[in-house]
Amino acid sequence: MITVGIIGAGRIGKVHTQSITTKVPNATIKTIADPFMNKDTEKWAKSMGIKNTTKDYKEILKDKEIQAVLICSSTDTHSKISMEAIKAGKHVFCEKPIDHDVKKIKAVMDCLKKNPKIKYQVGFNRRFDHNFEAVRDAVKAGKIGKPQLIKITSRDPAPPGIDYIKVSGGIFLDMMIHDFDMVRYLAGCNATEVYANGAVLVDPAIGKAGDIDTAIVTLKMENGALAVIDNSRKAVYGYDQRAEVFGSKGMVMNANDSQSNIVIANECGVTGEKPLLFFLERYMDAYAKEVKCFIDAIEKKTNTPLGVMDGLQPVLMGLAAKKSLKEHRPVKLSEIKF
Amino acid sequence: MITVGIIGAGRIGKVHTQSITTKVPNATIKTIADPFMNKDTEKWAKSMGIKNTTKDYKEILKDKEIQAVLICSSTDTHSKISMEAIKAGKHVFCEKPIDHDVKKIKAVMDCLKKNPKIKYQVGFNRRFDHNFEAVRDAVKAGKIGKPQLIKITSRDPAPPGIDYIKVSGGIFLDMMIHDFDMVRYLAGCNATEVYANGAVLVDPAIGKAGDIDTAIVTLKMENGALAVIDNSRKAVYGYDQRAEVFGSKGMVMNANDSQSNIVIANECGVTGEKPLLFFLERYMDAYAKEVKCFIDAIEKKTNTPLGVMDGLQPVLMGLAAKKSLKEHRPVKLSEIKF
Amino acid sequence: MITVGIIGAGRIGKVHTQSITTKVPNATIKTIADPFMNKDTEKWAKSMGIKNTTKDYKEILKDKEIQAVLICSSTDTHSKISMEAIKAGKHVFCEKPIDHDVKKIKAVMDCLKKNPKIKYQVGFNRRFDHNFEAVRDAVKAGKIGKPQLIKITSRDPAPPGIDYIKVSGGIFLDMMIHDFDMVRYLAGCNATEVYANGAVLVDPAIGKAGDIDTAIVTLKMENGALAVIDNSRKAVYGYDQRAEVFGSKGMVMNANDSQSNIVIANECGVTGEKPLLFFLERYMDAYAKEVKCFIDAIEKKTNTPLGVMDGLQPVLMGLAAKKSLKEHRPVKLSEIKF
Amino acid sequence: MITVGIIGAGRIGKVHTQSITTKVPNATIKTIADPFMNKDTEKWAKSMGIKNTTKDYKEILKDKEIQAVLICSSTDTHSKISMEAIKAGKHVFCEKPIDHDVKKIKAVMDCLKKNPKIKYQVGFNRRFDHNFEAVRDAVKAGKIGKPQLIKITSRDPAPPGIDYIKVSGGIFLDMMIHDFDMVRYLAGCNATEVYANGAVLVDPAIGKAGDIDTAIVTLKMENGALAVIDNSRKAVYGYDQRAEVFGSKGMVMNANDSQSNIVIANECGVTGEKPLLFFLERYMDAYAKEVKCFIDAIEKKTNTPLGVMDGLQPVLMGLAAKKSLKEHRPVKLSEIKF
Repeated sequence: MITVGIIGAGRIGKVHTQSITTKVPNATIKTIADPFMNKDTEKWAKSMGIKNTTKDYKEILKDKEIQAVLICSSTDTHSKISMEAIKAGKHVFCEKPIDHDVKKIKAVMDCLKKNPKIKYQVGFNRRFDHNFEAVRDAVKAGKIGKPQLIKITSRDPAPPGIDYIKVSGGIFLDMMIHDFDMVRYLAGCNATEVYANGAVLVDPAIGKAGDIDTAIVTLKMENGALAVIDNSRKAVYGYDQRAEVFGSKGMVMNANDSQSNIVIANECGVTGEKPLLFFLERYMDAYAKEVKCFIDAIEKKTNTPLGVMDGLQPVLMGLAAKKSLKEHRPVKLSEIKF
Repeated sequence: MITVGIIGAGRIGKVHTQSITTKVPNATIKTIADPFMNKDTEKWAKSMGIKNTTKDYKEILKDKEIQAVLICSSTDTHSKISMEAIKAGKHVFCEKPIDHDVKKIKAVMDCLKKNPKIKYQVGFNRRFDHNFEAVRDAVKAGKIGKPQLIKITSRDPAPPGIDYIKVSGGIFLDMMIHDFDMVRYLAGCNATEVYANGAVLVDPAIGKAGDIDTAIVTLKMENGALAVIDNSRKAVYGYDQRAEVFGSKGMVMNANDSQSNIVIANECGVTGEKPLLFFLERYMDAYAKEVKCFIDAIEKKTNTPLGVMDGLQPVLMGLAAKKSLKEHRPVKLSEIKF
Repeated sequence: MITVGIIGAGRIGKVHTQSITTKVPNATIKTIADPFMNKDTEKWAKSMGIKNTTKDYKEILKDKEIQAVLICSSTDTHSKISMEAIKAGKHVFCEKPIDHDVKKIKAVMDCLKKNPKIKYQVGFNRRFDHNFEAVRDAVKAGKIGKPQLIKITSRDPAPPGIDYIKVSGGIFLDMMIHDFDMVRYLAGCNATEVYANGAVLVDPAIGKAGDIDTAIVTLKMENGALAVIDNSRKAVYGYDQRAEVFGSKGMVMNANDSQSNIVIANECGVTGEKPLLFFLERYMDAYAKEVKCFIDAIEKKTNTPLGVMDGLQPVLMGLAAKKSLKEHRPVKLSEIKF
Repeated sequence: MITVGIIGAGRIGKVHTQSITTKVPNATIKTIADPFMNKDTEKWAKSMGIKNTTKDYKEILKDKEIQAVLICSSTDTHSKISMEAIKAGKHVFCEKPIDHDVKKIKAVMDCLKKNPKIKYQVGFNRRFDHNFEAVRDAVKAGKIGKPQLIKITSRDPAPPGIDYIKVSGGIFLDMMIHDFDMVRYLAGCNATEVYANGAVLVDPAIGKAGDIDTAIVTLKMENGALAVIDNSRKAVYGYDQRAEVFGSKGMVMNANDSQSNIVIANECGVTGEKPLLFFLERYMDAYAKEVKCFIDAIEKKTNTPLGVMDGLQPVLMGLAAKKSLKEHRPVKLSEIKF
């Protein structure tokens, strides 16, 4: 049984709390910290069976009973708290991204080198989705031969608010970062070069805020495969999350999940359900599974499925895409300094 | 090159004429006969490259150049013309059913026994559909093991007129007769017992005319498999033609054909096209293929794919179903005398 | 918060325990009883956070804190414990079937009439499956018009052991009973007549044990619709659970669930995953949902979604099917006395 | 009735001949010309009902009865014969591409300007495929709103011989040229910029011949949409031809066609058929339809569905893609001079 502390009681902190409470039998949450801790959150924490609540996450770091922390606070605090937690001897599950600044990720990497027993995992939840796992398993098992073309479609049902867009780091670091991780996961290697096309087609306000809302990015992978990712901030039919890997012996692709598998045939056609609405619906089981894997890695003293390098690479890819869009040319990953 | 005559220039006669003209290179139509032959039909016949038109089908039977006839006249003339043609030494393709009266089918059988060189084929076109052929091929190849359950769905887009219903012989002999043939084709054997459920759910006028419009019929097959056929005279989404064969090693089933394979995803769901509208759309290629097989059997002196026995059995099954519905009990095929 | 006791710690008792512990926040299990209670089960119960374990279910009935019981014991005890629990003032969730003997179900009904405040629910879990709920919702919303044809496919991946078959009550009461419930759920009414076809095609030992392993049953429903259910004890491709409702305005049907939605295209074809293996995989969420509905009905003082009449009707249908198979004729539900 | 001549009796010349003979009732072929005309081809021409055969296509151009020609000769002769035919007053259906050299296309355009009554159509057959037509119809009808992302997948079952590769003009002008036409068709506008990724992943011999066999090309369209095309010379599962258009109100995409719509479920999964093998299987009906549209345009004196500009643009796009790959940067269409 691993005793954990949760740092951050926002949406994703609550998701992880619920996962651990109901689906991770070998972990127990002792304390949850949030600078905005209030009566409601305290009440919710009690209902989840958590003993302690606090406004100060440092109480968690000081608590010798707590072996691991989940960092679910705002992005700008991820790297700082990561380092403090590592130094305090806690295993760390850190929500993505570790930071938008590669220097700060580098600092976490250095810190981990000095504390080699610490398990560190980054929260790229989509790797734990049953569909993407099945795609990856098929690739890994050689069922499609050597990968040659990788295609990822990732479209949100609706854009976030403009206030969020402004501080998001832009579509490449905020949204496509998940797809950068996914393309590495499916290819089994890093990207070497990125070329980005972008446009403002959903909402002019997003353009005014300095961002784009529609993008097609092509990549070259270390293993020679070519890849393409398309993103839109707004798919009216719901959260569209698909991948396809084509290789020398075949092709594997997934369909979206829906609430049910029914179809209705009538005078208008044969209609099935839309994809599940958004990430909380599509990835709820994946969120539980990633935390379970983290806890298991601590218990079994194995590697976590995604280390700090897996946190770094998608940020490098996102920065390369930004640079590519700005300079209107393909950008090598090696051009991004860290 | 086989020279043929077409007897009957109604809808199905025209279908076969077009098939032979455009898709059966080893046959040529010399003459087309129809008691209602008129200027329009003559014009159409010329446009199809047919030399002769006549009101009297006996001209075809007398013509020594003509080797084969397609009997596309009204059902009540099928057996009579079949026998005349056989006696005249013509190979015969006869539209289904040969007759609703088994004695008349028996007479055709006797006639064929005396003329063993004559090729005789009955027009159960669905066996030549690419989907049902693929289902049958999978069964025959042993891909699903020994058949145990056979399910056939057959629903028309709209009922025929009440005048037609009155002379149709009833749903079992008019509509389900195709499915009785299909279940024999898929099982590879005859039925031994039939139990019929029926109801008037589409149009009370059909009930008033002494028929039903909705039916579920279960069957026992000689090979031990159980089967079920469901029929409706009105499926608002189009012509629904599906089969499923379940066996000891697996299951095979087909989906309907549509005009295209597109899907549109929007706020209402993910919508594909309806099935093709009706038999002329769904089975156009099958109509051509059945005639091609008939011509090939003549040329290559092989058996036709469906002989007179294949014309008889579905009629026996239909009569058994009628009796079952009337007497409200399972009826053995052996109870139907012929 | 409703305090419950679990009677029976076998497979299904454990399923419900886990559901309540992890997915039913408004219920808590105080005690679990099982005549074969042992160290392992006690240890498991502790791990689930259950305070008390006992060999004697009467301890639960006596416990005034316990408001509701889940009867997960062997079928022959369901009706007896139901009545004892009702008399003890406990709300009752009883696994299906209440009994194979309609008199005993009648006794439970009488008992409930005398205790009108008691909530009683029967465990037909499939109604809570996301796919069948969606089919039912479409029918209820009028999306397919008036139901005319209902088709249910229900095939197990492998037959149970012969020892189980012998005491199972036969395929109609043991396996098809779920489909009898489903057809009532989808039609929104009772059946009036049943005709059963059966065969031994999977394993001769099942026939020797006096049962069949393959069946097609047709039904007439009170609303005029015709229905058909097919069952096989062995589908090599997994648990096949499909329903189709056809009506005056369209058709709705569901597909099976799989572990993932991937397809692999290679030289052999385009292959998707098999259906989920069996009921624990397919219906795990449905099991949780049915218990949640039971607990909610107690809390909110509403009707349970399935009352004792819903427990009775499928047994009547099963007995009618048995009689039909034996007497080789259609049997009216009204012929089954109770 | 339009009288036509066929210039070139190779594979595609034979396809068009068969289409006209069997599926285009308002056209008749008088003469077929081929420099390698021989006994076999003459015999085949007779079997198609064609009166004249010749080695010299100029006989066709001189024949006053012939109103239209189909140019099915080798690519290097397309523009020259186009101009000769136009000058001879014949309507022209020219196989794609008109030429790889834009100057020669320009010359055809100039020639057409001087002969405004001549109908000219380029053979981009895929526009006439039932699936792509349905995608385009949905877009045109506004069903997906304003197009934002267009994705085209186009993969051949096997690469052509190296000798062909050497003279093909390269993957962009030989294979992707169809997709360049498709993206214009689906977007309803021209491209403005192209960026090409390419690799040799199928066969090193293709690389040695100076070509690539795998490509991902991204495009910007005049209407603001972004597009991506992926090509592979070898998909082991068959001819993969899919398109997807995503817009402000939804998404439309097509699936491949197969020989049948069956699926087989067994212990290995649920397997459907592979896509149809190659272009002759997938596009046979489309080939007939494009010629039918050409003949109809002549008869009805309307525009052909694809004019000479539709022949030019994909060549410009292919040349831009070539330049992009070579110079490793995005290339504007306006950089390609003509």
